[in-house]
This record gives sequence, C-alpha cells and structure tokens, in this order.
Amino acid sequence: MSQSVSLSLDEAHTLAVEALVASRTSPEVAACVARALVASEADGQTGHGLSRIPSYAVQSRSGKVDGFALPVAERVAPGVLRVDAGFGFAYPSFELVCNRLPEIVAQTGLGIAAIARSHHFGQAGAHCERLAEKGLVAFVFGNAPKAIAPWGGKRPLFGTNPIAFAAPGGHGRPALVIDLAVSRVSRGKIMTAQKRGQPIPEGWVLDRNGQPTTDANEGMVGTMIPIGEAKGAALAMMVEVMSAALVGASLAFEASSLFSGEGPAPDLGQTVLAIDPDPVSSGAFAERMTTLLDAVEAEEGARIPGARRLAAREQAKRVGLSIPVSVHAEIMDIVAGRV
Amino acid sequence: MSQSVSLSLDEAHTLAVEALVASRTSPEVAACVARALVASEADGQTGHGLSRIPSYAVQSRSGKVDGFALPVAERVAPGVLRVDAGFGFAYPSFELVCNRLPEIVAQTGLGIAAIARSHHFGQAGAHCERLAEKGLVAFVFGNAPKAIAPWGGKRPLFGTNPIAFAAPGGHGRPALVIDLAVSRVSRGKIMTAQKRGQPIPEGWVLDRNGQPTTDANEGMVGTMIPIGEAKGAALAMMVEVMSAALVGASLAFEASSLFSGEGPAPDLGQTVLAIDPDPVSSGAFAERMTTLLDAVEAEEGARIPGARRLAAREQAKRVGLSIPVSVHAEIMDIVAGRV
Repeated sequence: MSQSVSLSLDEAHTLAVEALVASRTSPEVAACVARALVASEADGQTGHGLSRIPSYAVQSRSGKVDGFALPVAERVAPGVLRVDAGFGFAYPSFELVCNRLPEIVAQTGLGIAAIARSHHFGQAGAHCERLAEKGLVAFVFGNAPKAIAPWGGKRPLFGTNPIAFAAPGGHGRPALVIDLAVSRVSRGKIMTAQKRGQPIPEGWVLDRNGQPTTDANEGMVGTMIPIGEAKGAALAMMVEVMSAALVGASLAFEASSLFSGEGPAPDLGQTVLAIDPDPVSSGAFAERMTTLLDAVEAEEGARIPGARRLAAREQAKRVGLSIPVSVHAEIMDIVAGRV
Repeated sequence: MSQSVSLSLDEAHTLAVEALVASRTSPEVAACVARALVASEADGQTGHGLSRIPSYAVQSRSGKVDGFALPVAERVAPGVLRVDAGFGFAYPSFELVCNRLPEIVAQTGLGIAAIARSHHFGQAGAHCERLAEKGLVAFVFGNAPKAIAPWGGKRPLFGTNPIAFAAPGGHGRPALVIDLAVSRVSRGKIMTAQKRGQPIPEGWVLDRNGQPTTDANEGMVGTMIPIGEAKGAALAMMVEVMSAALVGASLAFEASSLFSGEGPAPDLGQTVLAIDPDPVSSGAFAERMTTLLDAVEAEEGARIPGARRLAAREQAKRVGLSIPVSVHAEIMDIVAGRV
C-alpha cells in the first residue's frame, strides 16, 4: 500500500524552496526551480515534479549543478539569443527566455534562444505553453541522457528526447500543448518497475543485445523502444541536432546522469523557437485554430492533446497535491539536514 | 509480372516537361515541376515521382491547379516571407523560398516562409535538404488531405503529415535529412494494394468504425494508424498547426483531392523554417554534427537516416530510372494528346 501526504500548492512550493536552500541553492534560484517542480506535479507530470528534489539536492550539494548560477544572455543576431546557464539549474534560463523572446519576436517575426551549459529542463511543454499564452507558436528542444539506440543498433545513443510544441488556442481556448517523448513509454516507468522489482510489458524496452525483454533491470542497461520504430529513432536524433548540436552542448551519450551527484556537470543544451503567427498567417491564425480545435472536439471519443494535463491542473488548484509518503519523507530529511 | 521502362534522368525530365506542357502548364513551371518529380523518382520516393504526372495533368487541364501561376513573395517582417503560390504548383514557390530564405537568415539568424494558396509539395525532405546544403538547419511543414483520426476518434481529420528536417552534415558529410510520415505506413501503400485488389497487413489502417481491417478499400475510407498511437496523432495535429493554421490555408479535412481534376483548388499551405547554426551554436555546430554522425556510423547495424535514399540517388545517376510500363504509357498518352 502506497500512502500519500496532502499539500496545498503553496505548502509544496515552500517545502521545495526549503529543501533546495538547504542544499547550496540561492533563495532566488530555489523559488524558480520550485515553481517549475510544483507546476509539473500539479499537471500530473510527477516524473518532473517534487520527486526530483532529492536528486537536485545531491547535485547542488556536490557542485555538479551550481545552485547560485544566474543565466547570462547575449543577443548574437537580431533573432538569436544565446543564454549561458552557467552549469546552474535550467529553469532560471527558461524564465529569462520566456521573458526576452517575445520582444525579439515582436521585432523580427520569429526568434530562437539557445541555452548552453544547462541541466534537466523538466516538463518541456510547460515552457512552450508560457510562450503560447503570450500569443506565440513555440517549440522547445532538449535532450536527455542516452536511452534510445539508432535504429538497427543495440547501444543507446539518443535520449528519450521530447517533442514539445504549443500554440495559442484560438478564440477563447487555452493554448494547445503537445509534449511527447519519442519512446513508447517514459523512462520513469521503467525506473519505477525496477525499484519495485516488477516486470514490464513486452514492447517497452530491448535488452543490451537488442532483444525484447520484460526485465526492468535489463531495460535500464538496454534501450527504450522508440515510437514507429525507425521513425521514432530518427525523431530522437533530430532533437539531438536541435538541442545538443545547435547549442554546442553534450550529446545524450556524452551527458552525465541527472540523478546522481557524481561526475562532471551534464552540460546539456536546449533551444526555444518562437514565431508570431499574425504576420506569418496574415491574421488568419486564430480562426484557423478555432476551426481545427472545434473539429477535434466534435469528433466522438477524441480529445484535444493536453486535456488530461489541464484537468489535473484544475484539480490541483482545488484540492492541492498528493505526494507519496516516501518522497515527502526524503524531502523532509533534506530540509532538516538529515541527509 | 510488372514490366518497366528504362529512362536516363534527362529523358525522364524531358518526358515530364512534355506531358505537363501538353496539359496547360507553362514551359517554365513544367521544368520546375519536372525537376522535383525526377529527383523524387531518383531518390526512390516513387509516390512523389513520375506517377504523379497523370493527376497533375488532369488538374492543370481542369484549372484546379493553375499551370501558369508564378509565386509572388512579400517580406512581411524582417524574418518572415509570405509567398502566394496563386493556386499553382507548389514547386516554383519552394524554389523561390530556397533562394530567398538564406539572405533573410544571413540578416536575422533565422527565417520562416509561409506558402499560401499552394498544392502538393512532394518530397518534403528534398526542400529542407537544399537549405541544409546552403549551411542551414531547416524544417518543412505541410499537410495532406485527411487520413488520420484524432486519437480516440473514428473519422479522419489530419493528413499523414510528414515531419521533414535537414541539417548540414558536419565535416565532409552530406546533409542529414529526416523525412517521415506520422502514419505507420504511407497512404500510397494502401492505394497500391487497393488498385491490385490485395489485402494489407493488420496494423496499417482502421475501418470507418475504428476497427482493425486488412481490406485496403476499407482503409481508404477509414483512417491510417499513426506511429505511437496518440503520439503520432498529436504530431499530425502539430503539423496541421504549423502548415494550415500558420499559413491561413486549408486544414486536411477541408482540402480537396490531390488526385482528381474535380472540385476547387486544394488551397494547401506549407511553411519552411531555416536557422543559421553558426551564431546559435557559437560556431560549435559542425564539430557536434560530426561527433553525432560518427557515433551513429560506429554502431553496428545502425544507419544514418536517409542513407537508402542517397544510395538510390547514386544508382539513378549511374544507371538511370526504371519506370513501370503502366506509368510510362499514361505519360506517353498525355504527351500525344490521347487523354
């Protein structure tokens, strides 16, 4: 029986800040990181939620992530912002980008930000969503440590690399947010099964010899099966290009773990692309989005992507969060300085 | 037994031009369309090759596509080019975009072109590839008539909408080109089986009631199964936003057929996004691409996406093309004015 602890959103935020500040992180950075983690938890994306605090804390304590680093931005071309995350947490850089990109886009029609010397970027869709709420169409590209093999190969080279996209929802609707890993299931599911000693369904992973397995341990040293087989592996590679190569950062197979405090900084890179739909579409965008979303809603049994996430968010606003006892206890130990 | 006709690349080009000029298309436009069709045929992408000529010809003869239209471009923001294809063929617009976008990108760091009142855009990756050969990272987004249902629904709303991406290949390698439909298989395979009266494997399509079927006829009135189930349907929707909504063009479920000469113009839209990797990556891009592609090549059994296409292209340069007798006969009938 797994038990849980109920927390309001404010309580969760305060707890996260306290744990991070107790782990060599500035109050300013801790508040920014906590906002992102609590928002992911509220959205039901628990793999990017409060469960990350213990691994963030060991990394800031060891100096693998610099909890005091603030991002520095340079506009290197009219449409291009380069951001140095300084081997700190990624979230302050994303806040900077979400504030600065709209000005750039207002001048040039579109813009791109490259975040270098970065770290785990959490719920990718949430960053796009902020830009979509400001009227922009946006992509976020970032890789993750190696988990997917190039198609036909056995060793992992690419991350489970999400494709994250958001667009203003047209007349009176929330932003459309599409955020999906190119593996069939998330790596978190394999890790959970591994911790619990449970088998996993066939079709999720391949073992180190490229053979199907239901053993979560084998899956963790093998590879995640991509969606559409060769197609998903190609999409994972595309995201490597759009994040690591385009930033000048670690490729998935070069990046250190985002869970342990040991080793060098992961040195990940992310890009954020934003487009003003009004000049591009000659003002037609809002009507076109409304027509598209109306058609999806009218189709029986279908759902607009992200609907479940928005429902979870509404529920969290009303009733707060429910955190596993084990996660809560780990965070309390960090706050109390017991670890 | 299917038999074929051998043609050199030049012979194929001349034949395509003759057929198009015989079908109310200007020599200038015909030459541009023929270049794209012959290049696709050489790349082994026969669904976007010479087999398209009969359907292009019926559409230009009926006026559904204007074979004399030349694109008109307007730079509506420093980074944004809007192109009016004038209900003509799409290829002249893509030629214009591949010529104009690099100048824009040189000034702003990145740029986007929106092609409105457009038509079938053929092999999506080929357009990106031209930009990658000029040193740019590029995406092409375009939709196709309805074939995929929103996940959970039964009726098709989205096209099989490709994701097409290309990037310079680093030191001494050809461009990396990723070009994949978000359906498990191409719609062309269903059409071929339908023509031949053959069954198709389960897992390719759903019938009009959303049930699995091996009947190609049912598949054509039903829906194509997307890669990764809900994920591929979401990617198809993303491409609708990036093409139809962002251009102000027909959504997949509004677009008329790209095969028959009847009905209004399909009024499709496409966008082309191009990024100069040098400022974005502070000059690191070529080294990063080389490291990534080296790693993929070093993995036993793996292949860089697009390798098969490049091999087909090399073979076509050496030995020419092999066209099915039936396709060749149809084209000869058009040239001779027999249809």
